[in-house]
Amino acid sequence: MEIGIVGLGLIGGSLAKAISQNTDNTVYGFDISKPVVHKAMLVDAIEQPLTDELLSQCDIVIVALYPQDTVDYVTSHADLFKKGSIVCDCSGVKRMVCEQLIPLAEEKGFLFVGGHPMAGREHSGFTYAKKSLFNNASMIFTPTKGPIESMEKLKKLFTSIGFTNIEIATPEEHDRKIAFTSQLAHVVSNAYIKSPTAQEHMGFSAGSYKDLTRVAKLNEDMWTELFLENPDNLADEIDTLIENLQEYSWAIRENDSETLRQLLKDGKEKKAIIDGEIF
Amino acid sequence: MEIGIVGLGLIGGSLAKAISQNTDNTVYGFDISKPVVHKAMLVDAIEQPLTDELLSQCDIVIVALYPQDTVDYVTSHADLFKKGSIVCDCSGVKRMVCEQLIPLAEEKGFLFVGGHPMAGREHSGFTYAKKSLFNNASMIFTPTKGPIESMEKLKKLFTSIGFTNIEIATPEEHDRKIAFTSQLAHVVSNAYIKSPTAQEHMGFSAGSYKDLTRVAKLNEDMWTELFLENPDNLADEIDTLIENLQEYSWAIRENDSETLRQLLKDGKEKKAIIDGEIF
Repeated sequence: MEIGIVGLGLIGGSLAKAISQNTDNTVYGFDISKPVVHKAMLVDAIEQPLTDELLSQCDIVIVALYPQDTVDYVTSHADLFKKGSIVCDCSGVKRMVCEQLIPLAEEKGFLFVGGHPMAGREHSGFTYAKKSLFNNASMIFTPTKGPIESMEKLKKLFTSIGFTNIEIATPEEHDRKIAFTSQLAHVVSNAYIKSPTAQEHMGFSAGSYKDLTRVAKLNEDMWTELFLENPDNLADEIDTLIENLQEYSWAIRENDSETLRQLLKDGKEKKAIIDGEIF
Repeated sequence: MEIGIVGLGLIGGSLAKAISQNTDNTVYGFDISKPVVHKAMLVDAIEQPLTDELLSQCDIVIVALYPQDTVDYVTSHADLFKKGSIVCDCSGVKRMVCEQLIPLAEEKGFLFVGGHPMAGREHSGFTYAKKSLFNNASMIFTPTKGPIESMEKLKKLFTSIGFTNIEIATPEEHDRKIAFTSQLAHVVSNAYIKSPTAQEHMGFSAGSYKDLTRVAKLNEDMWTELFLENPDNLADEIDTLIENLQEYSWAIRENDSETLRQLLKDGKEKKAIIDGEIF
């Protein structure tokens, strides 16, 4: 197949490397930075720059841009995609992308499938892209009506580059779950580090501190956009966490050991159930 | 030297294994569970059970019990420790332990040094003890007045079993910093998992969720005691985090992208400063 990748950052660059090096598909790539496109060719991540002409030949186009840029790119190139081709995105919110692009795709004769690779690093850009980024990761698709062969083609492509789990969800389900698993984790990590104690704790930390603050160093532009495209789900998750934290604080200030023990036991058991240790 | 270890759980058991196998000191061990003492002898973690008679010969006694049990053990054995010997504990709070045991030690003629090894696992008990538990970890001591040779002896022992950083702090400083680096992390992880979304997120999670919830599965008896011996510091940290989280929630609900971006940027920069990337 001929595959176009739009945006050669951490995700798009890693996809380009993985597809070029692990499959026999031909990859074309586009990035607003010409040096990045040049570098991607030099390291054999792409065969050629993705031109409008090549775009019209692609069987699959993967857009790896921020959500609004994804919508803008697909909208402005809607007449160029090959009839029957698949266009898939990688952005971290799915409702706003799918709501706008699925009707457009139906009108223009290509298939739009929402996608979200559950992989990342604390750094962004092609420099950090690596073909192993997706090893053992989950790929989430929020598909629409379309030929079953198209989804099979997509699944096969993504499992051939390291993904070991393909999840199918509605855009609503995706956005609700991702608010908890990813967005809330980034908010908490970013807020955790703001304690005045944080600046003087050197030598007093073990693994738990490191884990809690690992994703604090995030790209504020990207995450602001992602959060504000999922405000209901994320704010609800934050508020739920606040309410739960409040209970620990009260129990501690009241010296209420029975309540505190019960709060901790409840959290431990919920985690054990999720991890499959208690049924 | 002859070294006694009281409590052969995860920490005491790992200390016993590490000291026996990495140094030429003789280790005696005590545990309320006789099968654990037997097992520790079988795997050469200790040479003999720690009897009252052997306790009186020990140059260093390391107590690896919960805080109140530590105070009770040292108090009830105060007349048995060898004059001039060092007694050190491993519990996660230092004010209550040091306040009670330092005056007692001075009266009885031994030296009490508060200690807290910054290492652990999500499991407890001798079964999970391993001599490599302390590799590259920090050891915190909250010493009192005493011969400089005693602290040198302790430092040498602990660096010979894997610790690469020895921190000296007051009990107050220890309890304040540990509330942030360790206790708050356990509270947040335990609270995070309580979102109703947690039970249905399988397949939608990547590293950030795993990191945020790793320590949720804690021993509620031990942590209840630790938290309630450090209530002021910990409740303040929880409340600070709640206030910070509240700001993100408000910005998201108000669709205030400028405030949200600034909140995220501020967290990112604070983390970068702590990690030594910005000066």
